This record gives sequence, structure tokens and C-alpha cells, in this order.
Amino acid sequence: MVNDKVNVAVLGATGAVGREFLRIFAARSFPVGNLRLFASARSAGQTVDYLGNSISIEDAATADWAGVDYAFFSAGAGRSREYAPIANAAGCTVIDNSSAFRMDDQVPLIVPEVNGDRLPSDAKLVANPNCTAAILCTAIAPIERRARIARLVVSTYQSASGGGAAVMEELRAQTEATLAGREIMPEVLPHPYAFNLFSHNTPIGEDGFNEEESKVIAETRRMMGRPDLAINVTCVRVPVMRAHSESITIEFEGAAPSEEDIRQWLNEAPGVRVVDDRANNHFPMPSEASGTDDVLVGRIRRDPSHPNAVLLFVSGDQLLKGAALNAVQIAETLIRLRS
Amino acid sequence: MVNDKVNVAVLGATGAVGREFLRIFAARSFPVGNLRLFASARSAGQTVDYLGNSISIEDAATADWAGVDYAFFSAGAGRSREYAPIANAAGCTVIDNSSAFRMDDQVPLIVPEVNGDRLPSDAKLVANPNCTAAILCTAIAPIERRARIARLVVSTYQSASGGGAAVMEELRAQTEATLAGREIMPEVLPHPYAFNLFSHNTPIGEDGFNEEESKVIAETRRMMGRPDLAINVTCVRVPVMRAHSESITIEFEGAAPSEEDIRQWLNEAPGVRVVDDRANNHFPMPSEASGTDDVLVGRIRRDPSHPNAVLLFVSGDQLLKGAALNAVQIAETLIRLRS
Repeated sequence: MVNDKVNVAVLGATGAVGREFLRIFAARSFPVGNLRLFASARSAGQTVDYLGNSISIEDAATADWAGVDYAFFSAGAGRSREYAPIANAAGCTVIDNSSAFRMDDQVPLIVPEVNGDRLPSDAKLVANPNCTAAILCTAIAPIERRARIARLVVSTYQSASGGGAAVMEELRAQTEATLAGREIMPEVLPHPYAFNLFSHNTPIGEDGFNEEESKVIAETRRMMGRPDLAINVTCVRVPVMRAHSESITIEFEGAAPSEEDIRQWLNEAPGVRVVDDRANNHFPMPSEASGTDDVLVGRIRRDPSHPNAVLLFVSGDQLLKGAALNAVQIAETLIRLRS
Repeated sequence: MVNDKVNVAVLGATGAVGREFLRIFAARSFPVGNLRLFASARSAGQTVDYLGNSISIEDAATADWAGVDYAFFSAGAGRSREYAPIANAAGCTVIDNSSAFRMDDQVPLIVPEVNGDRLPSDAKLVANPNCTAAILCTAIAPIERRARIARLVVSTYQSASGGGAAVMEELRAQTEATLAGREIMPEVLPHPYAFNLFSHNTPIGEDGFNEEESKVIAETRRMMGRPDLAINVTCVRVPVMRAHSESITIEFEGAAPSEEDIRQWLNEAPGVRVVDDRANNHFPMPSEASGTDDVLVGRIRRDPSHPNAVLLFVSGDQLLKGAALNAVQIAETLIRLRS
């Protein structure tokens, strides 16, 4: 890099996460030099506006990655496996939002506020975690730093955006049809979504856990540096557009910290905002987390059912801290380390 | 009673639960003799159709309860406290859906499948439990009978119907407005409800738990006959019309039963239907629980984070097993005991 700007590419530029990258670059004044947008052949040739410039979408299959400093991948695990080696070979640092490399020991899995100190400055490929795991770890890491966690019990309330733009559109269209009294026919998802909820629609393993749950468990352990951390997760899709919520029971190895201590640790933590106003019944909710960089944390209270446990309720924007924002923060960390 | 029919009254006949009573009477061939409908003065004089008969709504404030055998109350705790003694004095058995008497030692709190054996035949006042507690206990009682539970961790996904007809209408109207791009203004609830969720909107106690959560804890302990049962509950309102769902971790005092045993116990239990098809990703969800008498139970799996624990996911119709159906089943139990 001969100046302060970096040349950037987005793979999956037409998706829900891809579109979010452009807003985040602008909002954070990310030092974008040349910007290139890649997608499937179907979208190639379309143009997208970025800060007044019309940028033409290129076909990812024939992309030449030369000259790109940082590439943000958000086009599914298959395309990540296909294109990451090519982009790396062209000298490009890839920050990958898919699950392709998250459990690869050679690839750092990073939330900067959680384990940014374990990001090597020369990393050419960095994995961006599962959205639910990223939001969970952002909320609990400031606590784990002071009081060692023994076990987590998590139930999620996951938004449509986790399934991409098509699922968000399905929720919108189905809800409209339901209100109009029209028959609905699920297309993208296996179950009706309007005014409904269901167990996360990923395949179920031998142990009865679906892939989303298994990812949250494995990635949380990896990011927290706690390979044996006891954790159970139930992932549920709810009819909310773009923020995930999580109900969390934290059991500690020793005595539970006080509610006041936890509130203070979270208040001081980057990437977290405490929303815990009992008098006004005001706690984290998707309507306030959506479009917000911080993960909202509240309902901090002692668990009456366990001597060493505390409960939390968390909401975070699935497309921001759960995806594009965290990826951009990884790039910002690398730029800082490399400057 | 000179014949097999009983004279019935419904207090709160115009509410979401009240209207459900009439459907249930008809669907179950409940032996309704004379039917009287009571509501506030505002609704008095309106008529309601029941099996082809037009029934005029009477003002509850001036009601004469003489001749009523069974009265179903669903008009809030204040009205229950006011009218239950009057109805009892007139010889009427009251089954009360409010929270007024649920923790009164003199008043049985009953889900027939859970603790119907503790319903005295001469009970003149019986409390119908909180909807979330009723659905929870229906699901776990068949398990507790064979394997003693040490602790429950519950996160809920509660529907609009729990707040009554006005909240259901608020969800519908807000969602319509949101889809049309119109500004929304919460009226009944404190927070936006369309495509949103929030911590249950009941006042928060000193311990950080809201009233709904405290009810679920206290009533579950009472119905299960386990005054010291360890339990934590997080109650969340989700944009679903009329079925509550619950994510449940059950820790046992001894070794956890096998998934197969639990599935069999639940399959044999009245009031429960196992929906646990891993291959087709088909589990309990509100769209299938709504309008269904049974509580749906699935996602039965060992908890990888605890040697003696099992997880479940449950959906039940808030207006049926969570309210009107259970009240009618209490009356059916009394009729049987008294015949």
C-alpha cells in the first residue's frame, strides 16, 4: 500500500450482507481506494452506486483479483472454498463470512473485541464467525475476562436476514399475503414464516442438534479459547427482519459476579451497550438493535435456580455485528497491525 | 343437577379467551344446558350466536348468578376477586382464568393431566393457571413422574393472544402499517410489536424478574407439587398470534432418561403430541399448535453441556391449553367426580 487507502472487493455484492458492506464502508469512512464488486454471472453487468460512483458488478467466475488488498466474501461456503485460494494467490487478504474456514486451525476466527489479540498481522485468510456466535461472544467476553464461565445455556430468536435477502423477502411477502387472507406457500423456507417461528432450518446431526447450533457451540468455544466449554444452544427462527436475540444463562466456575459488576464490565466493553431499564421495562429488542453497531445487553439478573449463575438477554444486528460490520472491523484491525 | 346438562356462564364473554369458550363447548359437546354470557356494561345488550341461538350479553355488575352451575371467569384478576364470592354464594362453581387465586392455598390450581388427582370434587373455586405454566407443566409432568427433575431453564416465545384481543389486533394493525411503510405508534403495548420482540411487558420485581416470569416459577412449583424446584424463566413476547413456544432445559436429580424413554412417555401422555421428525426438520411450531388441543413437544435431545440434562421445544395454543380448554377440562373433571 503506497498510501492510506486500500483496494477493496466484495464477493456476493448483491446479497443482504453484500449490500451492507457498502453502507458500512461509507458510514465508517473505511479507507476504500478502488472498489470492485463481484457476484454470480446472473448479476454481472448490473451497477451499484457507491458515494456517487456507479460501480459495475463483475462475474466472480472470471474475476482477476490482482490489485485487490482486502476482499470481503459473502457468497456461501462453496464459493469461498473456490475463490479464496485464487484471491490469496493474487496477493489479496480474504475476510470470509461463510462457514468454509471457521473451524480450520490455520485460519483465525475473529471478533476483534473478543479475540482480536489473536489475529496475526500477516493473516491472508480470516474467518468471520456465525452471526449468533459473534453476537453471543461479544456480550459474554467482557464477563469471561473477569469471572471464568463454566457453562452456557442459550436459546435464540433469529431474524430472517440470517437466511439472506430471499428469506427477508419471503417473510415480507408471506406476511402481506396472510394479512390479506390469501393462501401462503413457503418457497425458500420449509415452513410458514408469517406470524410463526420454527427450529432453525439446517440439517440435524446424530446428536439432535442442527448445523446452526453446532456452529454456535464450536465457534464460541474456539473464539473464547475454551475448547471444552460446556454449552447448549437452541436456535429458533422468528419473524423479525434483521436482528438476532438470545436468552443466555451463564453459570460460573466460582461465585457469580454481582449484577452491578457485570453491568459495569459491560458498560466499559467496546461493541456493547447496556439496555437494562427495569423501571421502564426497556431491554434489548430487535427494533432498537437493527441498524445499530453495538450488541445490546440487558435483563442482567441473578439466576434463582443456581447459586453461581446469571441471566442476560441480548439483541444484535445480524447484518452488522453478526456479519458485515465484524468483517470490516477485522480488516480495520489488520490495517492497523500492518501500518 | 336433575339431568346430564349443566347451566353455564362465561364472564368476559367478549374477550379473546371468552370467545374461545363457546367454540370449545361446541367442539367438545360440553353438556351446556342454559348458557349465560357476562361482560362489562359496555358490551351488555350485544348478542352472540351459540349453536344457532342468539344469546344476549348481560352486564356482569348486576348479574344474578342463581341457577348457574359452572362459571368460567376470564375478565382479569380484579373482576374475579369481585365476582367470585358472589357467584360462589349463589351456589355456582367458579373456574377462574385470572391470577387472582392461583397462589391461594385454599384454591386448587389445576391442569387435569398434571395434578387433576388433587382436585377435590366439592371445590367451589378452581384456579386455571398462567398459560405458559400450563403448557410447560403439561409437557414436563409425564417426564417428572418417571425421573425426578432437579432444575428447569426456560426461555419463552409468547404470542399476542396472551395480552388479549386488543394486543392481537395491535399486532395485526402494526404489521399492516409497517408493510405499507406507514409510521406505527404502539397503543396497547409499550414497544413496537410488528417484526419485533421484547421482554414480557409486566412490571419487574426486586429480583429482576417480571411478573409473568414470577408467575410461571411459582405456579409450576405449585402444580408439580415441588415447592423448592429450581427454575429460571425468561419470558419474551414474539410476533405470533396465538400459540406460545418454550425452549426448555431439564436437569434431573439422577441420570437423564434416554431420548427414547422420554419420547415414549410423552407419546403415552394425554394432552401431549410428540412432533420430533429430525429427517424432515419438523418440530413444534405455532402454526401447527394454533387451534390444536394438544401441547406439541419435540427437539428431544441430550444436553451436551450437562451429564444429567435433556432439552425440549414445546408449542401450545395459548387460548386453548393455555386458557379456555384447560378451564373446560377442569369443569369436565368436576362433573365426572360429582356424577
